[in-house]
Amino acid sequence: MQEKHKIFFQNLLGNDNAFFDEVHKRAYSYDATKKHYLPDGVLFPRNEEDVSQILKYCNEEKIIIIPRGSGSGYTGGALAVNGGLVLSFEKHMNKILEIDLENLVAVVEPGVINVNLQKALSEFGLFYPPDPASMEYSSIGGNVSENAGGMRAAKYGITKDYVMALRAVLPNGEVIKAGKKTIKDVAGYNLAGILIASEGSLAVLTQITLKLVALPKFKKTAMGIFDNIDDAMNAVYKTLSKGVTPVSMEFLDQLSIQALEHKFNKGLPTDAGAILIADVDGNVEEAIKADLQILEQNFLESKAREFRVAKDEQESADIWFARRNCSQSITMYGNLKLNEDITVPRSKLPELLKGIEQISKKYGFKIPCFGHAGDGNVHTNVMVSDKNNPELVKKGYEAVEEVFKLTISLGGTLSGEHGIGLSKAPFMKLAFSEAEMELMRNIKKAFDPNNILNPFKMGL
Amino acid sequence: MQEKHKIFFQNLLGNDNAFFDEVHKRAYSYDATKKHYLPDGVLFPRNEEDVSQILKYCNEEKIIIIPRGSGSGYTGGALAVNGGLVLSFEKHMNKILEIDLENLVAVVEPGVINVNLQKALSEFGLFYPPDPASMEYSSIGGNVSENAGGMRAAKYGITKDYVMALRAVLPNGEVIKAGKKTIKDVAGYNLAGILIASEGSLAVLTQITLKLVALPKFKKTAMGIFDNIDDAMNAVYKTLSKGVTPVSMEFLDQLSIQALEHKFNKGLPTDAGAILIADVDGNVEEAIKADLQILEQNFLESKAREFRVAKDEQESADIWFARRNCSQSITMYGNLKLNEDITVPRSKLPELLKGIEQISKKYGFKIPCFGHAGDGNVHTNVMVSDKNNPELVKKGYEAVEEVFKLTISLGGTLSGEHGIGLSKAPFMKLAFSEAEMELMRNIKKAFDPNNILNPFKMGL
Repeated sequence: MQEKHKIFFQNLLGNDNAFFDEVHKRAYSYDATKKHYLPDGVLFPRNEEDVSQILKYCNEEKIIIIPRGSGSGYTGGALAVNGGLVLSFEKHMNKILEIDLENLVAVVEPGVINVNLQKALSEFGLFYPPDPASMEYSSIGGNVSENAGGMRAAKYGITKDYVMALRAVLPNGEVIKAGKKTIKDVAGYNLAGILIASEGSLAVLTQITLKLVALPKFKKTAMGIFDNIDDAMNAVYKTLSKGVTPVSMEFLDQLSIQALEHKFNKGLPTDAGAILIADVDGNVEEAIKADLQILEQNFLESKAREFRVAKDEQESADIWFARRNCSQSITMYGNLKLNEDITVPRSKLPELLKGIEQISKKYGFKIPCFGHAGDGNVHTNVMVSDKNNPELVKKGYEAVEEVFKLTISLGGTLSGEHGIGLSKAPFMKLAFSEAEMELMRNIKKAFDPNNILNPFKMGL
Repeated sequence: MQEKHKIFFQNLLGNDNAFFDEVHKRAYSYDATKKHYLPDGVLFPRNEEDVSQILKYCNEEKIIIIPRGSGSGYTGGALAVNGGLVLSFEKHMNKILEIDLENLVAVVEPGVINVNLQKALSEFGLFYPPDPASMEYSSIGGNVSENAGGMRAAKYGITKDYVMALRAVLPNGEVIKAGKKTIKDVAGYNLAGILIASEGSLAVLTQITLKLVALPKFKKTAMGIFDNIDDAMNAVYKTLSKGVTPVSMEFLDQLSIQALEHKFNKGLPTDAGAILIADVDGNVEEAIKADLQILEQNFLESKAREFRVAKDEQESADIWFARRNCSQSITMYGNLKLNEDITVPRSKLPELLKGIEQISKKYGFKIPCFGHAGDGNVHTNVMVSDKNNPELVKKGYEAVEEVFKLTISLGGTLSGEHGIGLSKAPFMKLAFSEAEMELMRNIKKAFDPNNILNPFKMGL
C-alpha cells in the first residue's frame, strides 16, 4: 500500500481506525474456510459518511475493498485474495438503531451480531427468524450479503424474506436507499433484492431494515424413525401439503445415526434408514396438538416404525442432541471432512441420497448426510480417511465435484446457505450458462465499473 | 414498420401470430389507464424459442418490444408509448405446466390468468396467495412484472414472496434461468429478485415457478368501529404485535363510510371515524377462536365502540360488502376520480390521513381513503367534481402531487401495487436520488444495452 494512501485513511479515520501493521493484517486474513490471504490494511469506518469517503477514494485510486462481517463465512467471501483493504464493521457500525414495535421492524447497522439482535428482540416478545448455525458470532451484514438460512427456514424462510430495506454505498461513494419500511413497494427496480446475496461485490451495506415476527408461545418437538429415506420424505411431503409447516424438519441418514450411536450410545436405532426431527410452534395449544396429530398420522401412514413427541423441554433437547452433534460424530469416518451445503427440490432428496451412495461406493469414501428435509438443504460430508495423503484428498475433491454435478442434474443449487465466494467459484460453470455468467458480470459492472468491491469472487 | 420486418415475423410465427393491421394495433393500444398508444404490430409467440428469435432480431434491428400480460395495469406498463411491437402471451403461452405437490410449487407460462391458476390449485387444496383486485383477468406474467399485491398481503405477502424461479429471454435472445425449485439458493446474484417488478424492461419472462400454500380450512370475519383512525391503527399494531396476523386488515375512513351509507343505506355509523375489517384463517377452530379473542381484546382496548364477528358466510359477505363497494360509492364526491395506491409504514397511516385532510381543505376536493391497514397501502382518491373543467382537473393533479410528496416525507412509496410505468414516471424524482436513478439506468443497460425492452418507462 502506498504511503499516500495510508496517510489518507489515517487522516480520514484517525490512527485508531486505519491499520496497516502485520498484526492487524494477519488478524483479518482468515475466515471459516481456514484459508489465509493477507490484506493490505484494515479499516474500521465509524459511520456511513466514512464508508462513502473510503469508497470514493478507493474507486478513484483503484484500491480493492473487502467488506467483512465476522469472518464466519464458509466460502471465503471475506478473504482478501487479491490484497486490498478489509472494511470491518465490528468496531463501530454494530448498533441496533431502532426496534419499531408499530411496524414490527428493526433497523440495524451491518456489524450487529445476529444473536445480539435476537436477545434485544426477545425482550419485546419478538424474533428475527433467520438463525444460521453461526448466529452466535455472525453479523447481520454478513447474513444479508450471503442470504443466510438456518433451522427455521422450512416455516419462516430465509434472510431475503426479512430484508425490507437497505442503505448502501456504491463504489463511487454515493449513498443509495433500497426498499422501505413497507410490505409493499413497487416503485423502481428491486435494488434490495439484488444486493441480498451479492457477497459484498455490488455495494457496501450501511443500514439494514428487517421484518420481525412475534415469538410463538408454544413449541413442541416430535421424532419419527423410518426404515428408509423415501418413507421419511413421503412423510415430509404429506405433512406440508396438509397445511402443517413445522418450524424445522431435520433428517439424519443411516451413517449419521450410526456415528452418533457409536460416539454417544444414546440408544438410537442403528438399523434405521432415517430419522426425522420436527418442531412445531404456535400461540394456541390446541393448534399445536392438532398439528402434532396430523404429523403423527402422516408419519405413521408413511411407515414410520416409531413416532414420539417430547413431553417436556428436556426430552426435546435430548431429541435435538442427535441433530446438533451430527457434525462432530461423523469424524469417525475420516479426519478430513469435505462438507457442502447443496440444496435440491425436496422431492429430489431421496434420489440425491441414492446418487451420493453411488458416489460413495465409486470413490470409497463414507458420505454421511443430514440437514433440512423441509427445504431440501443437505449437508453432505465426503469423509477422507487420511488428510495427509494428497492422492486421497484429491480424490475427495473429485467426489465433491460429482456431488455438485448430481445436485445440479436434479434441479438443485451449489449452495443453499454458504454462498459461492472463493471455494465454490470453480463450480459456477456447472450451474450457470455463459449467458448467465455474462449477465452477472454486466450487473457487477453496472454497480462497480472499476471492479474494486470484493472482485474475482463468485467466479465473475 | 418496414416490410422486411413484417415478413420476418410472419415467416417466423405464421400469419396467424404476427399482425400489423389496424384492428390488432388498436386492440392492443390500451390498458387500464384508458390511454391509447398504437403499436406497430402485435406478435403472439408460441413458445420460448419464438420469444428468443423475436428478441434477437429486434435487438439487432433496434425494434422496440412491449411485453404485455392482460393489459389490466393501472400505470401504462403495457402501453406502446414509442411504438414498437406488442408481445402477447394470451394466445399460446398461457398454460399451467406443472402443479408439483411434493415441492408445493406451480410452474406456469406468463399468460396464465391468476384466477385460472387459483381454480386449478383449489382442486388440490392449495392456493397461490397474491390476489390483486384484477385477478379475474390479470396474468401471472403481468403480476410478476408489476410485483402485484392484494387483499391477503398482511398475512401472506406479495408476488415477490412467491416467485421461486423464472425462465426469461434477454434482449440478445439468450435464455436465462433465475432461481430454483428450492427455498434456499444462494449461488450467484439474485436474478429473479431483480426481474420481479421490472415492468418488462429487463427481460421477457417465459416460465414462472411459484410457491404454493395449503388452503386453510377455516376463515372468520370481524369488524370494529372506531371514533377515529388513530384508535383503529392502534388496534392494528397491538393485534399484530401479539402474533395474530389477520389475512386482511382493511380500513374505511369517514368519507368512505358516509358515501357507502348514502348509496346503500345499510346502517353503517356515519359518525364513525374509521371501520376496520379483519379476516383470520387457519386449520384449527380453537386457534381461530383464540385469534378472534385477541382481536376483540385489542380492538376494545383501543376504544372500538363496537366489535362484531360474522356468524356465518352471509354475515361475512355483508361486512365485506362495504369494503368492496367503496370505490363505486365515492363517485358521489365527483365525476373524476384520481386514485393512487400509495403506501406508508403502517405506523404513519394516521399522519398520512391527517395530511391528506389538509390537502383536501387546501384544494377543496374530497379525498376519501380506504385500503390495507395491515400493510399501510392506502387507496387515496382525489375526487374532482367536474371532469370537464380543465382548471379543476389541473388542480386535482396538483393535489395528487402533494399527496405523493407527503407520502415520501413519511417514508412511504409512490406505489404499493400498481407500479410506475408511464403514469407515475414524472414522480420518480420525488422518490429517488439522481444516484439511484443512474444506478437503475445502468442496471437496465446491463440487461438491455440497446434499450429495446419497454423503454422510457419508470422514468428511466
